[in-house]
Amino acid sequence: MPFYIGLMHYPVYNKRGEIIISAITNMDLHDLARLARTYGAERFYVINPLIDQQDLARRICGHWVDGHGAGYNKDRSKAMSLISVVSTLEEALSEIREKEGTSPILIATDARNDRGETVPYPFVRDIVTSHRASMVLFGTAWGMAKELIRDADYLLEPIMGVSSYNHLSVRTAAAITLDRLFSQN
Amino acid sequence: MPFYIGLMHYPVYNKRGEIIISAITNMDLHDLARLARTYGAERFYVINPLIDQQDLARRICGHWVDGHGAGYNKDRSKAMSLISVVSTLEEALSEIREKEGTSPILIATDARNDRGETVPYPFVRDIVTSHRASMVLFGTAWGMAKELIRDADYLLEPIMGVSSYNHLSVRTAAAITLDRLFSQN
Repeated sequence: MPFYIGLMHYPVYNKRGEIIISAITNMDLHDLARLARTYGAERFYVINPLIDQQDLARRICGHWVDGHGAGYNKDRSKAMSLISVVSTLEEALSEIREKEGTSPILIATDARNDRGETVPYPFVRDIVTSHRASMVLFGTAWGMAKELIRDADYLLEPIMGVSSYNHLSVRTAAAITLDRLFSQN
Repeated sequence: MPFYIGLMHYPVYNKRGEIIISAITNMDLHDLARLARTYGAERFYVINPLIDQQDLARRICGHWVDGHGAGYNKDRSKAMSLISVVSTLEEALSEIREKEGTSPILIATDARNDRGETVPYPFVRDIVTSHRASMVLFGTAWGMAKELIRDADYLLEPIMGVSSYNHLSVRTAAAITLDRLFSQN
């Protein structure tokens, strides 16, 4: 039942389909941390192998959790305190295994439907409800590398609105995914 | 059935509950335009009475619709072309009335539940599906002024996850609202 979210900055694709390390975006940290707190995630892992990018993320979090921002906006502090900055997915998984005593079911997300066989939202909602722990992964830039998706237990179907257009930001896609999987409606 | 969305920058509250005009945020325009395109909105009205703020918004849109950005990212261009920058809600409503031949049902949103009597999502989903036109309003800063909410036909219930924490960004709140009201699931 406990769940975790991860924001992957590597390995992800750029516009030309090459593997890159993407830069951490301030707004992504804020929006996903607030979503994590709203929907009850245990932790929000920001995953980036570059030390200077990790330092940037930790400085942003520090400002809101211990620094000036903590006094200015307590709600933001409660959200940002859910963030852990780590180098690799394996590092996050190892922390989760230690805490939960089991490996989380790993759910990948992607806006495209040609990167693996996908499963529908209601199916994954049942899975995350009935398993001891789960982790939902979101990709930045042009999405997570196929190899990463292949290592996940399930790949969620793309979010489709009413047309074939589904170029959402990772912030809004994560919002819709968490609401579909973890809302109490 | 056709629907519109509006992002209100006035009259909205600041942290201390005073009425202000909020500043236009680049990321809000991008994220909401992409949501509008995904869920099939007719237009996305950016509503701000300040001329220099309107100019800023039009310059951002121009870059993506006609400028360098249009060639760089066609998907973004398709989304940003849905934006109309106007001074007041009345201006947006008047455009909609002209196009649809009727006033849209006006749906307000708010994170708090003390600013008017709220209605649940399934109820509003039925309304927007069965009416000739509707418009969903999102507030920036600390939310839309009570007077504005009172003028709407309905106020949607706040988005609640699993706890009493519901301090989402307008970007992610709009994502969840549009998915709940207009997705084809």
